[in-house]
This record gives sequence, C-alpha cells and structure tokens, in this order.
Amino acid sequence: MKKLINAPENAVPEALTGVARVTEGAALVEGHRVLVRGDRTRGRVAVVSGGGSGHEPAFAGYVGPGHLDGAVCGEVFASPGVDAVLAAIRAVDDPTLLVVMNYTGDRLNFGLAAQLARAEGRECAMITVADDVALDADDDVTAGRRGLAGTVLVTKVAGAAAAAGRSLDEVTEAARAAAAAVGTMGLALTPATVPGGEAGFSLGDEEIEIGLGIHGEPGVRRESLRPADDLVDELVETVCADRGIGAGDRVVVLVNGTGATPPMELSIVLRRAVEGLGERGVTVERGWSGTFLSSIDMGGVSVALLPVDDDRLALIDAPARSAGWPSGSGVLSGPASEPVPSVEVPGEATPTSGDGTGRLRATAEAVGRAVRDAEGHLTELDAATGDGDLGTSLSRGATAVLDDLDTTDLDDPVATLRMVAAAVRRAIGGTSGPLLATALLHAAEHLESDGSPDEALRAAADGIADLGGARRGDRTLLDALYPAADALASSGSMADAADAAAEGAEATATMTPRRGRSSYLGERAHGHRDAGAEAVVIVLRALADA
Amino acid sequence: MKKLINAPENAVPEALTGVARVTEGAALVEGHRVLVRGDRTRGRVAVVSGGGSGHEPAFAGYVGPGHLDGAVCGEVFASPGVDAVLAAIRAVDDPTLLVVMNYTGDRLNFGLAAQLARAEGRECAMITVADDVALDADDDVTAGRRGLAGTVLVTKVAGAAAAAGRSLDEVTEAARAAAAAVGTMGLALTPATVPGGEAGFSLGDEEIEIGLGIHGEPGVRRESLRPADDLVDELVETVCADRGIGAGDRVVVLVNGTGATPPMELSIVLRRAVEGLGERGVTVERGWSGTFLSSIDMGGVSVALLPVDDDRLALIDAPARSAGWPSGSGVLSGPASEPVPSVEVPGEATPTSGDGTGRLRATAEAVGRAVRDAEGHLTELDAATGDGDLGTSLSRGATAVLDDLDTTDLDDPVATLRMVAAAVRRAIGGTSGPLLATALLHAAEHLESDGSPDEALRAAADGIADLGGARRGDRTLLDALYPAADALASSGSMADAADAAAEGAEATATMTPRRGRSSYLGERAHGHRDAGAEAVVIVLRALADA
Repeated sequence: MKKLINAPENAVPEALTGVARVTEGAALVEGHRVLVRGDRTRGRVAVVSGGGSGHEPAFAGYVGPGHLDGAVCGEVFASPGVDAVLAAIRAVDDPTLLVVMNYTGDRLNFGLAAQLARAEGRECAMITVADDVALDADDDVTAGRRGLAGTVLVTKVAGAAAAAGRSLDEVTEAARAAAAAVGTMGLALTPATVPGGEAGFSLGDEEIEIGLGIHGEPGVRRESLRPADDLVDELVETVCADRGIGAGDRVVVLVNGTGATPPMELSIVLRRAVEGLGERGVTVERGWSGTFLSSIDMGGVSVALLPVDDDRLALIDAPARSAGWPSGSGVLSGPASEPVPSVEVPGEATPTSGDGTGRLRATAEAVGRAVRDAEGHLTELDAATGDGDLGTSLSRGATAVLDDLDTTDLDDPVATLRMVAAAVRRAIGGTSGPLLATALLHAAEHLESDGSPDEALRAAADGIADLGGARRGDRTLLDALYPAADALASSGSMADAADAAAEGAEATATMTPRRGRSSYLGERAHGHRDAGAEAVVIVLRALADA
Repeated sequence: MKKLINAPENAVPEALTGVARVTEGAALVEGHRVLVRGDRTRGRVAVVSGGGSGHEPAFAGYVGPGHLDGAVCGEVFASPGVDAVLAAIRAVDDPTLLVVMNYTGDRLNFGLAAQLARAEGRECAMITVADDVALDADDDVTAGRRGLAGTVLVTKVAGAAAAAGRSLDEVTEAARAAAAAVGTMGLALTPATVPGGEAGFSLGDEEIEIGLGIHGEPGVRRESLRPADDLVDELVETVCADRGIGAGDRVVVLVNGTGATPPMELSIVLRRAVEGLGERGVTVERGWSGTFLSSIDMGGVSVALLPVDDDRLALIDAPARSAGWPSGSGVLSGPASEPVPSVEVPGEATPTSGDGTGRLRATAEAVGRAVRDAEGHLTELDAATGDGDLGTSLSRGATAVLDDLDTTDLDDPVATLRMVAAAVRRAIGGTSGPLLATALLHAAEHLESDGSPDEALRAAADGIADLGGARRGDRTLLDALYPAADALASSGSMADAADAAAEGAEATATMTPRRGRSSYLGERAHGHRDAGAEAVVIVLRALADA
C-alpha cells in the first residue's frame, strides 16, 4: 500500500504537527503527543478526548472553540499512556471531562489518569462511548461494545456544554446521556493498512465486512457487495432497532467515511439514510457526511444516529471551529421533491409566427438536408485527425432543426437563426454544440442590428474564436469562415463565399492543428482537411444553391 | 473497484441529492442537476460554479452563505450542458459571476450560457481558473493549463466579495486576480475509477504520477514513490517558481486530497508544506488540508498556494457555511517549537526522605526480586491462555522499582506504594501497567486514611475491578486478591493471605475467562491457572516471608 509518509514511525507525530499548525491558538504539550487549546476561556470545564492514532481527524482535528480543549494521541491503533493523558489534564488545568471510546487500553490509561488527577486535587470525570450496535450489549464474554464514529457527536455535545459554562457534573451528564443514546454501525469494502505494516485483513473483489470496528476488528459477517441503498437500509434498521429509534423521534445523522471513501459515495449514503429515516417517520434534524473518524485508509462507511431533544440539538448546533468539523449547519433543506422551478424565458426558441412557406423555410431545409447527406464524408474526414464524431453530431443537429421546421412557422431570419442555435445546442452538446450555437447567435445578433450578411458571417466566426479561443491558422472551421466572410464582403455573392471557404478548407490540409483533440497529432495531421472547415463549405454551398 | 453506489448511472444525481438535503436553504432546480441557494440575499451578485461531477465536494458542497450561490453538475468528468448553466443563472436571477475551470467543455458550455443570459438582458460575467503549474503556460498546442483544486480558493474569494455587496465588476475582478495568482500542482498514487467503469490509468506498486490533472490526464512524469517530504518540496518549489512566490510573500495553502487519501497523510503533507514555505521566507497566513476537490477515488494530493494581500485574506477569512468547507479558521498556531511546557506536579513520585535501611526497603527488595525470579514461570502460565507477555512485563516493572529503590530513601509505606505505582505505570504500560498502578494507588490511599492492611488489599482489588470492569469469578487476579483480603481481615496474618490467594489462583484453572485476551478462548482456558492471580500469590508470599 503506497502512502504519503516519511518514516512510518514518524507518521503519527508528523500528522499531529500538521494538525497543530493549522489549529488556531492550539499548541502541543512538551514531551507528549497532546494538543491543547492555549486560547480557551479559563474557569470553564475542559473537554479532552483521544485514543490511538489512525483515526484522523479524530481527535486532534476537533481541538478548537466549542469542541475539544485537548486531544491525547497514542501510536497507531494503540492507547496513549497514562502520563500523556495526565499531561493533557494538567495543561488545561480546569475541571476536566475525559471522553473515551470503549477500548480496554483507552479505558485503563484515561481512567488511571483521571484517578491520578483527582489525587492531585483536580476535578476530573470520565465517560466512555460504546456506540457500536453491531455487537450484543449483553455479551459480557468480550470487552463489550466498541466506540465508533458516534463518539464525535458525543464530544461535540460535551464541548458545547462546556463552552456554555455548565458545571463538570452537568457537562458529564450531557455527554453521558448522549453516549447512552447514540448508536453506530459500519461496514468496510477494503482493509486498513498501518504505516509500514500489512493490511489488517483481506476482502475479496466483491466482498464486504459488515459491523466491524474502527481498527478492523471482525464484524458480524462477510457477504457480497450489494447496492448502497440496501446496505444503508440495513445499517439504519439495525441502529434504529437497537436504540429504539422510531416514528416521532428526532435524530441527527453522521455518515462517516473510514479514510479512503470518496465524498461522492458518502453523499449517496447520506441521501439514503435521510430518505430511509423519513420513511420510518423519524425526523432528521441535522445531517453530515465526511471523514470524521477514520480507520487509516480503510474503504467503508458508518452511520451514526443520535436522538436529540431541544437541549441536545442546541448543543449540536452551537458554534464550533476546528480543522475537522464542517462549517455547514447540517440543517436539512426542503425535501428534494420541492425543487426550484426552472425559469423558462418565453420566446427564446420560438420564432415569430409566419406562413413558413417562403424562401426561408426552403433555405433551412436545403441546408439541413445537405448537412445530413454529408454525414459519411464528414465522419471520414474527422476520423483521420479527430474523434470521428463530427458527421453524426452535425447530422443529429440537422435533424433537430428539420424537426423543428415541421412544427414551427418561419418568416424572420433573426428568429430562425436563434431557433436553429437552440436546436443544435441541445441536440449536439459536447464542444461542437456550443460553438455552432454561439456562431448562430452572433450572426443573429448582427442581422438584427441591421448588419449585412458578410458582417453576420464574420460575427459568427468571431463568436467561435472568442468562445473557443482559436485563431485563423489553427486549422479549424475559422479557416473557412473568415475567407468566406471576406469574399462575401467584396462581391456580395454567396457562391463566391462558398468558393473562398472551399479554398480555405483545402488550405487546412497543410496547417498544424492547435486546438481540440487533433492538436495532439501535431504535424501528423498534414494532408487531411479539417472536418469543421469542410462542414462550413457544405453549409455555404447549400445556402448559395438555395 | 468496489463502490458504495447503486446503479452507476444514478451515482451523480444521488450524490447531488445527498448534498442538497444537508445544505440549509438550498434546492435543486427542476429538471437540471443544479443546486442553488433559496435563502440568498437578493440584489447581490450571485457566484455560480460547476463542471463535471466526480470532484465532490466541489462544487455543490460549497453552496452556502459566503461561498457559492449555485453549482451546476455535469455527468462524471463531463461538462454540464449550456441549458443547465442557463437554468442556474436564471434561478439565482441576479448579476452572476461564473467561475469555471479551464477545460474546453466547461469553457464552451458556461461561456455560451453567459452569452445567452446577456442576450436575455442579464448581467453575467465569467472567469476561468487555470492554476495547474505542471503544464507550460506558453504551450499553445494543447488546450492550455488546467483548472485544479486552487479553484476552490478562487470561488471562496468570489463568494466573499459577492456577500460583501460588491458590484459584478468588482467581484469579477477579485476572482480574476485570485485566479491569476493561484498555483497548484498534484500527484497521484492510485488512479480514479469512474462508477461502472475501469481505472483511468494504472500505476505500479511503487509508482506515482506527478503533475497530473483532476481527471487523470497525464502528468509531467512517472517515477518511484519517495518520502512525502521530498514530494511536497517538489510541489511547493514548482508552484513557488511558477507563481513567483518568495521571501516576504504571504500565502494561504490548501492541501487537497484527491478522493481516497486518508486525513493522516494530508496532515503530513500540510505540515511539510507549511514548514518548507517558512524555510523560503514565505509567510503562511492560513492552511487547510482535506478533500476539497476530488478526482472520484484517486489516491493523491495537490498543493495550492494563493498569494494574499490584506483584502484577499479578508475575503478568504470571511464567514462561509457549506457542507464542504471546514469550520476551522486555518489560522496558524505558533510554530511547533513553542510547545506548552508539561506541568510536573512535584512530589508525585518522590517519597519522603528517610534512612532507607529499614524493614520497608528490605520488603520492597524481596518482593521485587521474587517477581523477577518468577518471570519464566509467569510467562509459561500466560502463554497458555494469554499473549505471554505478563512475565516480562512484571519483571520490567520490578526492575524499575528496584532501580528507584537504589536512588531513593524510603521510610513511609504510603509514599513507597505511590513510588512503586508510578514506576510500574511507566515501565509496564499496556493494560497491566495501569491496572497494577491503580491497585497500588488505591492501597496507598487507604493506608493513608488509617485503613488496615486488609482494607488496603481490598481497596487495591476494588480499584482494579473498577478500572478494568472485571468481577470475582472472571478468572483474573481478583480471584486471588479478594480471598487474600478476606483471610487477612479474619486472621491478620499475611501468610494466611498468601495461602488464600494460592487457593484462589488454583480455582481459576476451572473458571471461564470473561475479560481480556483470554476471554476469546472460552472453556479452552480450563486447566490453566490465571497468570495474574499467580503473580498475586508470588507478591503476597514475598511480603509474608519478609
């Protein structure tokens, strides 16, 4: 597994240093892997969390106003020692609540540190979070339920209660109650690999592990990858059943990536979690997706649900600033079924009415048919130096224009050009669609302001040059359009313009392409005419003939 | 490549729906993949960005107060169409700035939409971001420099300028200047795989690609993976050289994960970037690491540097709330070389002075030697049902205690117990260290408050039970300690206590372990005495003999 690290043994302190540098007002405690706020308001309860490293941004990434006052970091997946925890308690030097995930090492080291702190005359309380609903809580053979990403919601509640000036007993009770209420369940698609080590477990190409712990501890079962919605439904169902969450309840939902899960997938999961909770009659008050408590580079996700009342929701909503917590409120927008109506501007694609039997219709039909007829010829030219789709793209555009002719009256050249622009823009897409559309729109604009046809043709070329960033000589359709505009200006004859375009198109066979896909060919394009320039010739010949 | 998706063709709209649901006050525009703020203050400039999907949280994740008013999302790695962009411009319905990354499709589709919007009488401007310093800006054969993650800093500047009520010209100029100033360079360790598709390229087990684009477009070269700091130095050097950033300049730095890069690695990169810029005399004003503009699930990183003056920094600092932007200010803390001093509480491990020649020293020495002598025996017992480290752990603790005896005077049992507690806590660590330390501390506490030796022994057992969550009958050292305390209470003889402990330790051979590593063995542990209980016998026998 490739990693962006230096020596594996330095990964933890270097990552912590990185977080420390961009955490305003925070500092490392000398001789320990402990980050504390140096700018906290004294006399308030301090909230300290921590545990093994490898769970970034947890917990150093949550050090900041309104969240954590200190974080104690062990080696990768190993509890920090008692003295490090004690150093954090001494550094914050106020009544302290320790929020600890339910792992034996963390419980022992933080627990003893709390005892030692009390022996020094300090007020110190500790709560453990055991939010993993995948394991049976009544099974006392093992170490009990594990702490998972729901812990971040518990520290958020505790941090807000402390920032609000509540007493240690009150902060402890708020955190304890949140820890008792929150439920989390996760799954993995790919294992975690500790720096310098081997993957903690292995999974087949289509295999996932459901209900596993944050260090890759075994889950409840392995099975084949299913569609995301099925998996999310199972996670939500299990958490709801275990925590007694049902219709009428209010929750906040935290969708957590385990380290290597892309944001796109986390948003897909969050979407279904919110939807599925809604179907159960549960009110989702807030929702976030992101990487909140990772398992190094594990690929996977967990869903945490924290039931809330007004007080707890206010603590979740209270301002907090840290490297790891998002700026967004998490407040849900209206349901997706209430979209903003798309504003249709009337008339854009609707030419003024007319009898549609005149010269304009005949001309448009002739041009459209000529372009369709040239499909094979243009495809062949484009395939030699481009991606070969110009023939079919233009033919698709021509068909769209011809279809619109059949249902629309035409008698205004400006409006007709605008209709053709809209039709090709929608039918062609890609890069050709917008370029042709802008050419037609520029031509229409110049015709409308009493421009002559040659100025309209030049405006079309300028529009393409402006939007596409091409110039004459770049081996594009401009090398046919500009000569055509020149010829039209001097003789007034469309046939002359078509001839000039043909000469220009011929000349592209000796030019080196500088724009678009054919630019990668360089001089290897020599000997082939540009397909776009050829298309200009075909259109102008059809206009001249009509 | 396993993915948490449903049908691949639904990945984009489902992810967008997820983001839309947790973006307060935002809504999707009907019929388009366009997210707009419904709660924006009208009459201000609207900032709209977008492009192909697969770059989450860019750009829908930045829709929110102070950042984007709208985001237009194409298919994966494909520009949205003109009509979608136009729908966004119409939906925000105020003077609009489009911020677009420099890719042909985006430039054409957003550019034409801007033209159409202006044709409707709307004020609409567009700027493109081409921050990729890996490609030569003067090379006009290809499409020019690409837009990379520095774009997010440009949209942040634009969004803040708009929120401040600046005019469209002013907002456009602020964004244009930021786009001209920002430089970015990235590298990849693993390729991106589009939903339902194949990996875009392949890299060997130790191979990386430097200077590549956000869709996996080729970089400037391939080479072997080097230590992170070397790679970061090259990225920073290249950006600084290209953008003319040097001593005396002020910058903000954005370390961007490309989708599958764990936060730990991003923090390591950020650390070195900040450090390296400092070495160049560049002032890093703000820094962030995270996944800001992904390339689906590519593993890699990019470093963006944006030079700032007071005005631009104020725009970067201006409040913004969105799903994708962190809450942390990014303001740098003091350098890591100014840590908080670790508070040492005097006297904790320093017993009161005395002549150290008395009974207490002899007793401590006898117990220490007995534990060291038992190392082999305890290792053998522990190996049968545990991880086999108890013998060496206790021996290490005993040695630490004996070492401290050689340099410390002793005459107070309470202080001596506290010294022993501190020595074993530091020397043993793991789970045994804290458990033994808490036992000794509890015993010391009870002796200090005039408790009898049997109450001290019971308190030691209670301390372990409390911290470790074990009970009598769980097959632990408690099954020796509690009987010993009972015997000591009834007869007052330490020899009787040792005998009772031995009986208790013998009984553990028929118990089923319920705590710690041996709990996974279940009934297979039967026939083996618990090594911890045996250690209690050894200590008590040594105490009795002394």
